[in-house]
Amino acid sequence: MAATSWEDSVKSLKGVILDMCGVLYDAGEDGGTPIPGSVEAVKRLRASDLKLRFCTNETQATREKFVAKLQRMGFEISVSEVFSPAPAAVAILKERGLRPHLLVHDDVVPEFDHVEKTNPNCVVIGDAAEKFSYQNLNTAFRVLIGLEDPVLFSLGRGKYYKEDDGLNLDVGVYMKALEYACDVEAEVIGKPAPMFFQKVLDDMGIPSHESLMIGDDLVNDVGGAQECGMKGVQVRTGKYRTKVRGYIITP
Amino acid sequence: MAATSWEDSVKSLKGVILDMCGVLYDAGEDGGTPIPGSVEAVKRLRASDLKLRFCTNETQATREKFVAKLQRMGFEISVSEVFSPAPAAVAILKERGLRPHLLVHDDVVPEFDHVEKTNPNCVVIGDAAEKFSYQNLNTAFRVLIGLEDPVLFSLGRGKYYKEDDGLNLDVGVYMKALEYACDVEAEVIGKPAPMFFQKVLDDMGIPSHESLMIGDDLVNDVGGAQECGMKGVQVRTGKYRTKVRGYIITP
Repeated sequence: MAATSWEDSVKSLKGVILDMCGVLYDAGEDGGTPIPGSVEAVKRLRASDLKLRFCTNETQATREKFVAKLQRMGFEISVSEVFSPAPAAVAILKERGLRPHLLVHDDVVPEFDHVEKTNPNCVVIGDAAEKFSYQNLNTAFRVLIGLEDPVLFSLGRGKYYKEDDGLNLDVGVYMKALEYACDVEAEVIGKPAPMFFQKVLDDMGIPSHESLMIGDDLVNDVGGAQECGMKGVQVRTGKYRTKVRGYIITP
Repeated sequence: MAATSWEDSVKSLKGVILDMCGVLYDAGEDGGTPIPGSVEAVKRLRASDLKLRFCTNETQATREKFVAKLQRMGFEISVSEVFSPAPAAVAILKERGLRPHLLVHDDVVPEFDHVEKTNPNCVVIGDAAEKFSYQNLNTAFRVLIGLEDPVLFSLGRGKYYKEDDGLNLDVGVYMKALEYACDVEAEVIGKPAPMFFQKVLDDMGIPSHESLMIGDDLVNDVGGAQECGMKGVQVRTGKYRTKVRGYIITP
């Protein structure tokens, strides 16, 4: 019975949203490598009647550079189909007249080129990786604790992700650190924030119950999508398990 | 009425425990500077009938080097009177047969010289300051997440402390980071852990209600002491406020 209801669900689908790292490719030293079968999977989705979007919490590159990398790997993908936290953050900052102190990866800084950053009145953290030095985290902390009304934005809340050489700490860990230090709650921009998924649904023009999110993160991809009324599927690649490969749908 | 009951409490006191950083001295580049009046305050306590101990979450030096620094500042103080987290951690590790991966300040490493550290089955973090690089935190994370039953010890849970040039993040912030990353709860060694205060009380041979803890941290000094049935007083030096100096007892 469960199988039938899952099949019915699949039949009613009008749109698919794909997570990227851990689903399409594994991150690594040279920009990463495509996961076997993923280039073909995207091709088959394109050949279907389903609308297709990509949704990532990637914040180690501008969207343009990130998409170019995926194209080099062989994926059919364009910038306008990709939703990532940095452009969403820029929109929110401008809307609320906020001037960020940035603790983000060098390669994503250009996304914030046209945002006023002098005399900061908020802090934005992304997956800064090696830039999460004690010094840099302390500087962000001092900005935050010095504000009358501290505002902290976190580009995602992931705990860790998988690279070629093992697991690496993600931005969520440093979000928790600053939350504790300053007694604040961060505003998360990116998955699993419902607003973030909603923007993708709006762009496809498809209601949530006819949409499917596919990711490797049970909380940020699957859980976040389900919170919005979408269907969620966890792949067994990426951070899900290190030794199992290939696409296995888990209803 | 309140004043009378406070006076009665003071009369019944048999022992005093002093926090050190922010109470006796302010930390800084050259080891810090004594807070005006504090050397004399310790002298007066020594001249009284009160027993005196020192209780610190300092983990940036061995107890011996730390005490030598205080002596150079003019304080009458001996190693056996000082309770700090690292020796307490060593005792716990040996008792439970645990082999730590250390993420602590270089200068406190010698405290762990006689502890077996190969093939680690737990992680110990202290106030590692600049050593809290992304790389080092990630290494500690990988050790922890690789354990079947992850055990994390944190030498204190402070959020930040004051140095000459401003506020600095303390170990508690990195404890929260690793707790979130690995879904574990750290065991705190040091203030405000009740076991830590109890060891000091045992050493003085005085019941908690006849003892007074004086510190600059409302949670870790005052709150922790009160949890144990001791009296707690917060000084207005150290991290309490940056512009007010001198000893003011706040009942």
